[in-house]
Amino acid sequence: MSQVYADRRGRLRDRCAAAGSAAALVSRPANVRYLTGASPPGAVLLLGGDGTGDDEVLLCPHAPTGDPVEGRVDEALRLTVLPPSGGDPAVAAAGLARQAGADTLAVEERHLSVARYRAIGSAAPHLRLDDLGTSVEQERLVKDDEEITCLRIAAEITDQALGELLESILVGRTERHLALELERRLVDHGADGPAFPTSVATGPHSGRGRHRPSDRRVEEGDFLSVCLGASYRGYRCEIGRTFVIGTTPADWQIELYDLVFAAQRAAREALAPGTACRDVDRAARQLLDAAGHGDGLAPSLGHGVGLEIEEDPHLSPSAMGKLDACVPVTVEPGVHLPGRGGVRIDDTLVVRQEADGGPELLTITTKELLAL
Amino acid sequence: MSQVYADRRGRLRDRCAAAGSAAALVSRPANVRYLTGASPPGAVLLLGGDGTGDDEVLLCPHAPTGDPVEGRVDEALRLTVLPPSGGDPAVAAAGLARQAGADTLAVEERHLSVARYRAIGSAAPHLRLDDLGTSVEQERLVKDDEEITCLRIAAEITDQALGELLESILVGRTERHLALELERRLVDHGADGPAFPTSVATGPHSGRGRHRPSDRRVEEGDFLSVCLGASYRGYRCEIGRTFVIGTTPADWQIELYDLVFAAQRAAREALAPGTACRDVDRAARQLLDAAGHGDGLAPSLGHGVGLEIEEDPHLSPSAMGKLDACVPVTVEPGVHLPGRGGVRIDDTLVVRQEADGGPELLTITTKELLAL
Repeated sequence: MSQVYADRRGRLRDRCAAAGSAAALVSRPANVRYLTGASPPGAVLLLGGDGTGDDEVLLCPHAPTGDPVEGRVDEALRLTVLPPSGGDPAVAAAGLARQAGADTLAVEERHLSVARYRAIGSAAPHLRLDDLGTSVEQERLVKDDEEITCLRIAAEITDQALGELLESILVGRTERHLALELERRLVDHGADGPAFPTSVATGPHSGRGRHRPSDRRVEEGDFLSVCLGASYRGYRCEIGRTFVIGTTPADWQIELYDLVFAAQRAAREALAPGTACRDVDRAARQLLDAAGHGDGLAPSLGHGVGLEIEEDPHLSPSAMGKLDACVPVTVEPGVHLPGRGGVRIDDTLVVRQEADGGPELLTITTKELLAL
Repeated sequence: MSQVYADRRGRLRDRCAAAGSAAALVSRPANVRYLTGASPPGAVLLLGGDGTGDDEVLLCPHAPTGDPVEGRVDEALRLTVLPPSGGDPAVAAAGLARQAGADTLAVEERHLSVARYRAIGSAAPHLRLDDLGTSVEQERLVKDDEEITCLRIAAEITDQALGELLESILVGRTERHLALELERRLVDHGADGPAFPTSVATGPHSGRGRHRPSDRRVEEGDFLSVCLGASYRGYRCEIGRTFVIGTTPADWQIELYDLVFAAQRAAREALAPGTACRDVDRAARQLLDAAGHGDGLAPSLGHGVGLEIEEDPHLSPSAMGKLDACVPVTVEPGVHLPGRGGVRIDDTLVVRQEADGGPELLTITTKELLAL
């Protein structure tokens, strides 16, 4: 793996050099992990400018633990653990860059706070600060085989946890408890932890995008929507399913389910290299809009996943750009009818060429409307 | 409760006015919650400058849910939910401030990213941006009765969850599972959720401050250290205890336990209004240092708690400032012997006048060395 990280750092150095920055400081945790294999809390990565690789330093406020949650630091990388009184590693890194003769340092302006930025400026007053922008995020868009393998395992774990829940008795249990049980099962099956807070929504809550589990209990006749995902070696996936509780779904439930299912399928089928991101969103949105549900829709019907649960690309009406092969995304339309509930169906897929079989579905739990 | 929030906002407006800022923009979630009762994801609070209260607006990217985790927005406050394409609420707030005639806007430079700060500057070019600094954090230091009640309930929940765990069989179970079970019990007893990720550390891991639960199983003869806390209405507390597994602790275990216990007690007893924060740290640190454990100690042996699990004051050798009455803090020394394990003992207490009975212990689980 070490060469993978060295190559990623090399590409970033090339970008920075082309943009006129002698050195770069990476502070966003997912970006640090992408470039070093680990994201110890508070760690920052300094890439110097002489191109030898000797001037690459990971500065940490604590010794890395090597725990799966934070990952293992690439052994080829120089590691500096600051003393307890060492202050902000970003400031220390700027001092190092200056000592090494760099005159400009590209920093992540979207991540660094104004206060840290000013502290860097004060500690290294002759260093010009540039914006690194989203250089690392752009590198992260297209995943390599190793990364997709991690996502595939994360999805397997997620499907297992969800499958086990479906075999248990659900009526009478609270949203909170079902969510906690799902998270425990994710860990049982080998996840580092949940990729994001598990959402379980019953009855009138069902179909809501970011519903936080409450003390409401599952009742006969409810829609039940769940959204969960495992993190495996830092890679995060997402699945969302909606079920009906009891023997026979009501007509409105079947109708709404079929609609959201059709919208989700349309968006899945639109996934292909070269397709505009907004067109994937439109494929689902226009069906829901035509059925009169356009107003309540989420601003985005899907997004990239990887070391973060929500990363580029965004599948939304205003999204720029096109899909590439080997980009994993979610497709997650949902409709919520206030007071009644609703349906959300969410998968994680990898964009693939038609010749390679088209989009690869990672989350394979059935999307039939199950009555539980 | 509404008046409480209005009063807090009034005090902040006074501070800003005194510092020459016509308006203030609060973006740090815990600060937003302190001033409005809630912290809907991404919400920012704009306090205008005409002093009437009509120019106070909470701008949210999504409608607040009223869920206990994010709290309920003070009903007296004007609330604006931005449309899905509404962009960054902080930028929208700066535009409002400008329209309202403000010429300066104080922002939280420690929280806002450089990119957001620049976006505000571009959207409202004639607005001078000042630094709000830690004005709200300073207001948050001393807690009122209502806040202390929430902390007391959080501590009760935490003691209950821990107490139940101690009655169960521990040998053979993994750190991860014990941690998940503790978190489930916190929620069972009414917590919004865990105040921070629960730590369970066995055998050679025990006594480590930020240990993430692993798949190691509890064995006979282990030290077992746990650190957990409930969040209740946003208020977070913390308890840490160390136990020994099996019938009889080894001599080194008793000796180390007694030492850490003595250090923790010394720091607890040092808590009083007017005491320098560093003196509380020193009370514990000097005992551990004299016993030869000075090198491996954490940089801080305690910290404030409230709407965040780690807030001011910090009890560390370099801390400035003195304690006040009604400031809740943790006292949490620990010693970890590499390869063998160690002991951590952690309580949440409220600083009180001697005449009021001295420091109020919120986390009351016994600190005897229990053999489980």
